[in-house]
Amino acid sequence: MANTNMRWKLPTICFVLQIIMIILFGFFVRSNIESDPHWAEYKETQNITSDNENEFYYRYSSFQDVHVMIFVGFGFLMTFLQKYGFGSVAFNFMLAAFGIQWAILMQGWFHSFEDGKILIGVENLINADFCVGSVCIAFGGVLGKVSPVQVLVMTLFQVTLFSVNEWVLLNQLHVIDAGGSMTIHTFGAYFGLTVAFILRRPKLNERNHNEGSVYHSDIFAMIGTLFLWMYWPSFNSAVSNHGDAQHRAAINTYCSLASSVLTTIAISSAVNKTGKLDMVHIQNATLAGGVAVGTAAEMMLTPYGSLIVGFICGIVSTLGYKYLSPLLTSKLGLHDTCGIHNLHGMPGIIGGIVGAVTAAAATEDVYTAPGLIAMFRFEGDWANRSPSTQGGYQAAGICVSLAFAFVGGTIVGLILKLPIWGEPADENCFEDAVYWEIPNEEEEVETSNQYVAHEPQYHNTLKMSEEP
Amino acid sequence: MANTNMRWKLPTICFVLQIIMIILFGFFVRSNIESDPHWAEYKETQNITSDNENEFYYRYSSFQDVHVMIFVGFGFLMTFLQKYGFGSVAFNFMLAAFGIQWAILMQGWFHSFEDGKILIGVENLINADFCVGSVCIAFGGVLGKVSPVQVLVMTLFQVTLFSVNEWVLLNQLHVIDAGGSMTIHTFGAYFGLTVAFILRRPKLNERNHNEGSVYHSDIFAMIGTLFLWMYWPSFNSAVSNHGDAQHRAAINTYCSLASSVLTTIAISSAVNKTGKLDMVHIQNATLAGGVAVGTAAEMMLTPYGSLIVGFICGIVSTLGYKYLSPLLTSKLGLHDTCGIHNLHGMPGIIGGIVGAVTAAAATEDVYTAPGLIAMFRFEGDWANRSPSTQGGYQAAGICVSLAFAFVGGTIVGLILKLPIWGEPADENCFEDAVYWEIPNEEEEVETSNQYVAHEPQYHNTLKMSEEP
Amino acid sequence: MANTNMRWKLPTICFVLQIIMIILFGFFVRSNIESDPHWAEYKETQNITSDNENEFYYRYSSFQDVHVMIFVGFGFLMTFLQKYGFGSVAFNFMLAAFGIQWAILMQGWFHSFEDGKILIGVENLINADFCVGSVCIAFGGVLGKVSPVQVLVMTLFQVTLFSVNEWVLLNQLHVIDAGGSMTIHTFGAYFGLTVAFILRRPKLNERNHNEGSVYHSDIFAMIGTLFLWMYWPSFNSAVSNHGDAQHRAAINTYCSLASSVLTTIAISSAVNKTGKLDMVHIQNATLAGGVAVGTAAEMMLTPYGSLIVGFICGIVSTLGYKYLSPLLTSKLGLHDTCGIHNLHGMPGIIGGIVGAVTAAAATEDVYTAPGLIAMFRFEGDWANRSPSTQGGYQAAGICVSLAFAFVGGTIVGLILKLPIWGEPADENCFEDAVYWEIPNEEEEVETSNQYVAHEPQYHNTLKMSEEP
Repeated sequence: MANTNMRWKLPTICFVLQIIMIILFGFFVRSNIESDPHWAEYKETQNITSDNENEFYYRYSSFQDVHVMIFVGFGFLMTFLQKYGFGSVAFNFMLAAFGIQWAILMQGWFHSFEDGKILIGVENLINADFCVGSVCIAFGGVLGKVSPVQVLVMTLFQVTLFSVNEWVLLNQLHVIDAGGSMTIHTFGAYFGLTVAFILRRPKLNERNHNEGSVYHSDIFAMIGTLFLWMYWPSFNSAVSNHGDAQHRAAINTYCSLASSVLTTIAISSAVNKTGKLDMVHIQNATLAGGVAVGTAAEMMLTPYGSLIVGFICGIVSTLGYKYLSPLLTSKLGLHDTCGIHNLHGMPGIIGGIVGAVTAAAATEDVYTAPGLIAMFRFEGDWANRSPSTQGGYQAAGICVSLAFAFVGGTIVGLILKLPIWGEPADENCFEDAVYWEIPNEEEEVETSNQYVAHEPQYHNTLKMSEEP
Repeated sequence: MANTNMRWKLPTICFVLQIIMIILFGFFVRSNIESDPHWAEYKETQNITSDNENEFYYRYSSFQDVHVMIFVGFGFLMTFLQKYGFGSVAFNFMLAAFGIQWAILMQGWFHSFEDGKILIGVENLINADFCVGSVCIAFGGVLGKVSPVQVLVMTLFQVTLFSVNEWVLLNQLHVIDAGGSMTIHTFGAYFGLTVAFILRRPKLNERNHNEGSVYHSDIFAMIGTLFLWMYWPSFNSAVSNHGDAQHRAAINTYCSLASSVLTTIAISSAVNKTGKLDMVHIQNATLAGGVAVGTAAEMMLTPYGSLIVGFICGIVSTLGYKYLSPLLTSKLGLHDTCGIHNLHGMPGIIGGIVGAVTAAAATEDVYTAPGLIAMFRFEGDWANRSPSTQGGYQAAGICVSLAFAFVGGTIVGLILKLPIWGEPADENCFEDAVYWEIPNEEEEVETSNQYVAHEPQYHNTLKMSEEP
Repeated sequence: MANTNMRWKLPTICFVLQIIMIILFGFFVRSNIESDPHWAEYKETQNITSDNENEFYYRYSSFQDVHVMIFVGFGFLMTFLQKYGFGSVAFNFMLAAFGIQWAILMQGWFHSFEDGKILIGVENLINADFCVGSVCIAFGGVLGKVSPVQVLVMTLFQVTLFSVNEWVLLNQLHVIDAGGSMTIHTFGAYFGLTVAFILRRPKLNERNHNEGSVYHSDIFAMIGTLFLWMYWPSFNSAVSNHGDAQHRAAINTYCSLASSVLTTIAISSAVNKTGKLDMVHIQNATLAGGVAVGTAAEMMLTPYGSLIVGFICGIVSTLGYKYLSPLLTSKLGLHDTCGIHNLHGMPGIIGGIVGAVTAAAATEDVYTAPGLIAMFRFEGDWANRSPSTQGGYQAAGICVSLAFAFVGGTIVGLILKLPIWGEPADENCFEDAVYWEIPNEEEEVETSNQYVAHEPQYHNTLKMSEEP
């Protein structure tokens, strides 16, 4: 049995990673012109009269919404497990706090590197959050089955792979993916599933009773769901072009999400013998519409097109939770704690396809000639690309993301399988007590058990075994 | 006894409604110029030099705050019931997700219809959220006593009635009501109360023990309260004129809300024999100040005027919870689960009156001559209206809203009384187990009850009756 | 034993304070030009063409983020106590709602007073929230040990002292402190600690078993932690100069916070015998990085400088929770419920020092000549001040803040020690039941206890003692 004592492993890796970050930031990262005192001079050279033209005022409130999605959204969504609330919210916090630093560097080298320095502004913060979003997704696949050290190692590698994949898609294939259906969701989900598959535990289901929710943990999870759902329009529009593109991306995402909710509820009720709803579906599948318009939301998908996408994805995702996930576990041994395949995997691929089709169907009539160029950035090397060619490249982007996910996930999964990271034993999965000091009811002990567990919100395994 | 099995009813209504939405959106809904690629052309014709002039940047962060109020604010406010947390947050989610789509259509036909199309932008999203807010309010009156199918049917009709009432007020009476004291709160509350009255259950109180909170459910509810309270300045300023009006509406609302908190606490303590505070009051009456400046916040109500309004409404609302609600239940059989009469009904009417008085008292001296025209839109057909006439029409708006609420509520209540919607029996009211799969402690069963319920956050009725 | 019945004390103080607020607002507070209908005229005189130049659009979304930090952030952070959730979130709500009104007046007289009136706009709301932030901090030191009347009295005096201290720092010493490391955190923490010391209860620890968390209360607290953590970049940038300064402050704070998370986790694990993490550290010390760049975030601290500050403060703060707090309690009898010394005290002082050093090191090369003047407001009386002199004054600001905290805290502590405020007895500390109606499981009583406490989320002391 693995040694789950984190006393030296976890502090060591945290310190090493953080010190490396400081050194690399020291060498490479500087403020860009919009967050530097030279901005005033620059404004004059650009004939900018108002500070409102600073990128900060176009992007900051979107950034904050995305930030909430990553930390509260994903963090609380995963608190549905009855005894893994601490790990869900806090390991997500840890991985994201490290991940954003590493992402600023990786994405910076690819996209914001000038004269030997990475020049950062608010858009870099958004993109770092996006990158970390893909790690949060993958974390959902292995939730409760890995140690915090494994989480950090996975983050280190996944952020790296994400950035390379993103660079291939955006810079080599010249793919449009502002809301990340491909780069964030497809890549994140299949990467996480591959890792989960490599780390599979054949005896897990026989032994573990903790994998399930209790009444209040399901309500905590709804905090995550709702903040993800509400702020998703900001997510898909955060890095779109100023003006109409950002505006349109928000509207389309809003429509798609609304539609998902109704079909999720419909299917959740329809697949239950007595028509009762399942909170797992509400917590997750209602979000599928946001995933699936990640690529196309800023295009002229139109509000009704968005409704259709949300309609389909609510159905696909809920059916996935009901039928496909149990099948993957029983047939392949692929255990996916949060059902990321249903929420991010399938809707992510659908989103990539919707994006490819929408791009291929673009016309000057709909977008105007300069609008078409602005939308798909048909400039420089890509000045002669046609919408239909663009559609083909968009489709290629899905395949590349999947390839990166499977190959990268396999390698990272094998690294995480090394017996040195303090992985929990099967019987300790989904249980905070392995890695956390858990509050106990001291009073109970001190008053020599005159009454039974008057505040028994949590007992760790050791505690329970002491009871008669 | 009614059949509460939702298996066919709920999926059917969800699918039918969502498909109708898609068809109607397909026929009618398009992006407006500010979210269309033709924006660039349009900008030039309007001599707009900065994308910051796009409506998106004036309204989007207000929209997101309102969005949080509707989904997290109302959703969590209602989780105070000990066994109805799933229904509270998820049925609110469902009704709002459907309602915003239907509201975009209904309000669009009245206000954004051009050349056969509804042209939408961020302001339409805000208005749709506003419209749905009135449904969330009404839902609070019937919370725990209706099936999800009834909720959807009510939403369908209430959004329709709201839009007609709003059109009468704004377009026919030319009433000012940016924060919706009349259109949202007065209409929503009295509509909901009328429906609750029609659906009254004389034997409910004798039988049901679930109508109450537990410790943690009261804390969940505070999440809703605080997000409503904090973002209310955005709510009341979201659709105000650009610049000073929006700025002023936020400040006045902030003041009114602050004042409500103190008088709520004062009265809550004063009406209790031992001076103890009641969470029900804190959760609700602290918000009354926001309701009551919904109409007047963008006018020159002044900060101290706002404090006075909040002062009064904190008192009225808390006294309502303490004395009036029990009276309405015992005398009229009117059971109002969330006390919407105290939070939205009375403060809504007060808000309408405050608005009428503030409008009637408006002078060119205070507003400047063009400012007065801009504030009350004394243009076109209304170019010759005086402030005092405006005050009269504002007062008329309260009456019209009440009339719509009573007549509409009666009709909708009678429709909802039909025994086909799967209404819960009296003994199943306020209990999630009727419509939800509830997580149970499997371990308990499997280990043959060696110790008593170590995580008994929730037991459904069936479960408990099996226990010795 | 003190009489904890609040029936007349609490309503009286609430009403008196609120009526005084109304009167003073009536005499003094008016809208400033940007929230007044005369804005349109003013715009013309200033050649402002766009309403986007209204301060509202530069500050409002930052204001809302700060607002969330004060009410949800601080409120929920303190819900970690197992039986003090109501008091934590609601007394924080009460003190902040009163405090912002009084702060608008106090700060207004010092900073926004023109022709006998205080002219307020969105920046005043932000500053009022900032001022109240220092009261929330101090409240954390006495949490669970004071009555709501004491909380209001403390707020009244602390807001007054804060405003005077702030005026001395900003207007007399001409210190820069946009994010309030000195004015908010250092002052707030040491004021609160001094009050806690004066009110110390030597027998508290022997008797009270309620001072601790339960599983779900620790998750509630994480809601507070995360909203504080996510929105801290808005806090530190909210009142910075438009454009690059605001942009830079957000980026630097983001970096510092990210770094704190990793070192907090590292130390939390390293100081535990079995390497297990402690939720208290995660809930609090992860925020230390935000505190410590409060002064310097808008300066050219650089991203890597911010990482270093966060790195150090995560360590210092976590070690403080582990070793220093128990020592202060056992040696000095200084009981600090939320550990404000570790989260706000030490990091606040570090922040002041970092600010002084960063200011002293400022050069025209880095800031540009006009940039240096804009950053440190080297104008008017301070036109000839050099960066190194500025550094000296910054350091003096720390000392002044500490002096205000110790002297003010002593006086206020002695006032609060008067036996007339309804202070709870030692055995009732950290227990909502003294001041709150607590929901009980009626069913349990009515069914004559056939099964044990099926929903025992909370029992008050009286209740428990009745049980066999």
